[in-house]
Amino acid sequence: MTGTGTAQQFVDRHRETLERALSAIRERGYWSAFPESPSPRVYGEGAAEAGKAAYEAHLGRRFELGQAGTVGWVGSERSPYGPELGVRYPKADLDALLASAQAAIPAWRDAGPEVRAAVCVEIVTRINARSFEIANAVMHTSGQAFVMAFQAGGPHAQDRALEAVAYALAEQTRVPATARWEKPQGKRPPQVMVKTFTVVPRGVGLVVGCSTFPTWNSYPGLFASLVTGNAVVVKPHPRAVLPLAITVAIARDVLAEAGFARDLITLVAEEPGERTASGLATRPEVRIVDFTGSTAYGDWLEDNARQAQVYTEKAGVNAVVIDSTDDYAGMLANLAFSLSLYSGQMCTTPQDLLMPRDGIGTELGRKSVDEVAADLGAAVDKLLGADAQAVEVLGAIVSDDVLARLDGADSLGEVVVPSRAVTHPAHPDARVRTPAVVRVSADGSDAYATECFGPVAFLVTTDSTGHSLDVFRRIVGARGALTASVYSTDDKVVAAAREAALDSGVALSENLTAGVYVNQSAAFSDFHATGANPAANACLTDAAYVAGRFRVVQSRRHLPAE
Amino acid sequence: MTGTGTAQQFVDRHRETLERALSAIRERGYWSAFPESPSPRVYGEGAAEAGKAAYEAHLGRRFELGQAGTVGWVGSERSPYGPELGVRYPKADLDALLASAQAAIPAWRDAGPEVRAAVCVEIVTRINARSFEIANAVMHTSGQAFVMAFQAGGPHAQDRALEAVAYALAEQTRVPATARWEKPQGKRPPQVMVKTFTVVPRGVGLVVGCSTFPTWNSYPGLFASLVTGNAVVVKPHPRAVLPLAITVAIARDVLAEAGFARDLITLVAEEPGERTASGLATRPEVRIVDFTGSTAYGDWLEDNARQAQVYTEKAGVNAVVIDSTDDYAGMLANLAFSLSLYSGQMCTTPQDLLMPRDGIGTELGRKSVDEVAADLGAAVDKLLGADAQAVEVLGAIVSDDVLARLDGADSLGEVVVPSRAVTHPAHPDARVRTPAVVRVSADGSDAYATECFGPVAFLVTTDSTGHSLDVFRRIVGARGALTASVYSTDDKVVAAAREAALDSGVALSENLTAGVYVNQSAAFSDFHATGANPAANACLTDAAYVAGRFRVVQSRRHLPAE
Repeated sequence: MTGTGTAQQFVDRHRETLERALSAIRERGYWSAFPESPSPRVYGEGAAEAGKAAYEAHLGRRFELGQAGTVGWVGSERSPYGPELGVRYPKADLDALLASAQAAIPAWRDAGPEVRAAVCVEIVTRINARSFEIANAVMHTSGQAFVMAFQAGGPHAQDRALEAVAYALAEQTRVPATARWEKPQGKRPPQVMVKTFTVVPRGVGLVVGCSTFPTWNSYPGLFASLVTGNAVVVKPHPRAVLPLAITVAIARDVLAEAGFARDLITLVAEEPGERTASGLATRPEVRIVDFTGSTAYGDWLEDNARQAQVYTEKAGVNAVVIDSTDDYAGMLANLAFSLSLYSGQMCTTPQDLLMPRDGIGTELGRKSVDEVAADLGAAVDKLLGADAQAVEVLGAIVSDDVLARLDGADSLGEVVVPSRAVTHPAHPDARVRTPAVVRVSADGSDAYATECFGPVAFLVTTDSTGHSLDVFRRIVGARGALTASVYSTDDKVVAAAREAALDSGVALSENLTAGVYVNQSAAFSDFHATGANPAANACLTDAAYVAGRFRVVQSRRHLPAE
Repeated sequence: MTGTGTAQQFVDRHRETLERALSAIRERGYWSAFPESPSPRVYGEGAAEAGKAAYEAHLGRRFELGQAGTVGWVGSERSPYGPELGVRYPKADLDALLASAQAAIPAWRDAGPEVRAAVCVEIVTRINARSFEIANAVMHTSGQAFVMAFQAGGPHAQDRALEAVAYALAEQTRVPATARWEKPQGKRPPQVMVKTFTVVPRGVGLVVGCSTFPTWNSYPGLFASLVTGNAVVVKPHPRAVLPLAITVAIARDVLAEAGFARDLITLVAEEPGERTASGLATRPEVRIVDFTGSTAYGDWLEDNARQAQVYTEKAGVNAVVIDSTDDYAGMLANLAFSLSLYSGQMCTTPQDLLMPRDGIGTELGRKSVDEVAADLGAAVDKLLGADAQAVEVLGAIVSDDVLARLDGADSLGEVVVPSRAVTHPAHPDARVRTPAVVRVSADGSDAYATECFGPVAFLVTTDSTGHSLDVFRRIVGARGALTASVYSTDDKVVAAAREAALDSGVALSENLTAGVYVNQSAAFSDFHATGANPAANACLTDAAYVAGRFRVVQSRRHLPAE
């Protein structure tokens, strides 16, 4: 029973972290378990270099996982910064893989929520220790700049994982493991029963990763399913496998050390176009699906994976209602950063800037739409400045689709902030672009009312702020949104925006002018998505996100009255 | 602001009850808020007579509710005990009704979870005060005998309602209403934000009632949706409208007193065959559906009400694994009662008694299948005895379908316990029947492997107890079950049954020989259904049952650093 001893060590080791995480989700103030700074003072001298070397050691080689049902090798990742990765991953026979995953479940179920949570925290902790390796893998699959790949792909994703573990532990332990039921019977002795309540998993959880945030968007579902007793199959996007392969490898090692079967978590890689996710998602063994990606495929999963609980984060149209500001420069700088970060390739990037056509009030007087457009362009230029500086914000364009949308932006309206190509000093093959802003009228073409993923935003002119809010309700109601924001010095406008956001079911940021951006959400404090509008059917991560991943099965028996 | 004052009174009045209910769901020991005894010592002298008179005052009249969109009157209830009820209910124009329901939501949402919970407890408390009236209504729609109609349709249903309110209050208040987020920035001042978290409902919840337990099966979904801020439309079974009409009328009055719109809860009655539920369930305004009834219609709802969160309790095949016992008479008496109660017209009634064909061990020596069958028949006879006594257990047959299944029982196998017709002393038109038991071989006809709702059970002979457990896994896996039980003196067999129950996702009762029956589940202690097998996609009531009925929407804004 070495396994059990190790599992118990994990329980002891991570008790405090879990308790802190549980109080963080109750309070939703600031807390982070994993430092976001890639500084050597935090992660140690040489950590960055060692992580880069570890990343490079994967290139051009087979990524061995020792999974059941390995029948070949696949892989075709190319870095948005240029080179092919050349990593080959196991190709799986799904019958054998799923049979092995299912066989692993009962012992994992019987270990109980506390052991599972501790094992999961150990996994996340070891993932944290390999943040530099994973950051390089995220950078060279998603195209994120290095610091962003480190933060969003590393500690921020790890915090989200721990948050999911905490929510799931809390929900699983709301019901006691046993209860004594004693019903009075008047003058006769009471009826007495002992009841046992066992958390049982749904089965196999499938996690379908995306190409832009392979770890951040996958970890919540992965850990929520695993910690609730399910086995997990990870199906990465064919362009972003390596970060999840490293994740799966770490998890398999920890599970084995703790005495459980490695195949509780497996990787299913594929060549582009194989549609492995569709085959997997509709298998009877698969009872949970977590997906981040397009609305079309998310809808397909919801319609077709009927045997499973399906959690989707899809496309949305994120809007900013601009009414007035008392910090014009701060507002523009904030918007410029939000539009530029990772070339707008975030599900949370603002797309529609809604503004009255007669301009907005500022502390510098009224500003016309033309002035706002020009000043926003200047703010983007100031932020991005020299190429060497720009690429650290912009990263690289992740796919041809994104580039095609950007190239077609001038057909959608009047380009008021043009995109420019940036040459990456270290990676001349990388396609780096600054964001374009296209001016349209709210009542003209409705190109702005559907998602245009990537570095294209719309400056949408309206009759008034009231009209802007109507447009906001219409597009969020129809297409959904991951984020929304408002700029106004008028409390009544802010209140109306809050009401519109509540009615539309989208999170609102108000008057962001400093170092917090609408496209960033902090684990343990900000919820990501709401599940209350068409952009996502769930929130990452809350109680509803975890409560349906397991069930409670009871047994009961009489005790003789005492 | 009278309304607000009254709502606050409800909050003060019910604080203690809610706290007790919250601790009950954490502990899951014995607790009940509403006394189950219909004794005058509990409910007061004259309460029974007054409730009967109140029930009779509804007969042959219009049931006025004052709902938006009332365009006519419908109703066709006939008591299983004989007479037509003659009550006429509002016929609704659904466009007008749903528009009014939707318009009522924002103020209800803005009231917050605590006020909503208190208003709901006030509703349940007033329902409790009308338990005798509702008991008569349940008796004369479902066919339950009076005491059962009182208990299951009254206090037990009320306890389930309060349980749902408690779970929903707990889940809604896990997230704080506001949080202060303060992120350190090294030597610079911290970033500080204030965040607001608001519980928002999904929209309109539809509750589709059944004919056998119009209140007990409807209250959990009704109160779970209402207390989470949704409006609720109640669509009763056309044969069992009155208990829910009384419920809706009480709720509307309390909502109005508290300052909210009555149309937050409405009744949609119909003539048989109108298929109003299908029309309602697929309306875009309807975002939650709760259903109890047939597998075919539950599956239809899951497949078609795609815009809604759908909670279904469908048919199942409840099995008893009989291996051995040290209380042969107790086991038989317990089984006889479980099969006879309400003529087996409960979703929790055992259907398949699985037993080795070479008999079972007892404290009186080995008993052959023939002996067990004969002794079970004798136990049924002893329980039911004279007709006047029998009808108080059996109630009346609720529908022609049930009677047809009973009449066809002899075509399914060898009838080893025959059904007999009982004449109701007070209601000669009532169709009252004792249960039939049909002997089949596990490997013969598979009639026993699908639900046969009503007073027909199967004595299924197997090769061994191991074989019985295999059959158990097979039928529960394929058809689902609401209950399961095992009789064995062998700890290894009980452990194997527990494992089979966990794997199949069904609650297990072990060796019930005294006053607790497998078909009874106690609110606040026993979960009803699990959501882990095909008989139901949800458990009534746990956290997962309530957590998806609302979402949390946040807003955030900067505070200057202090």
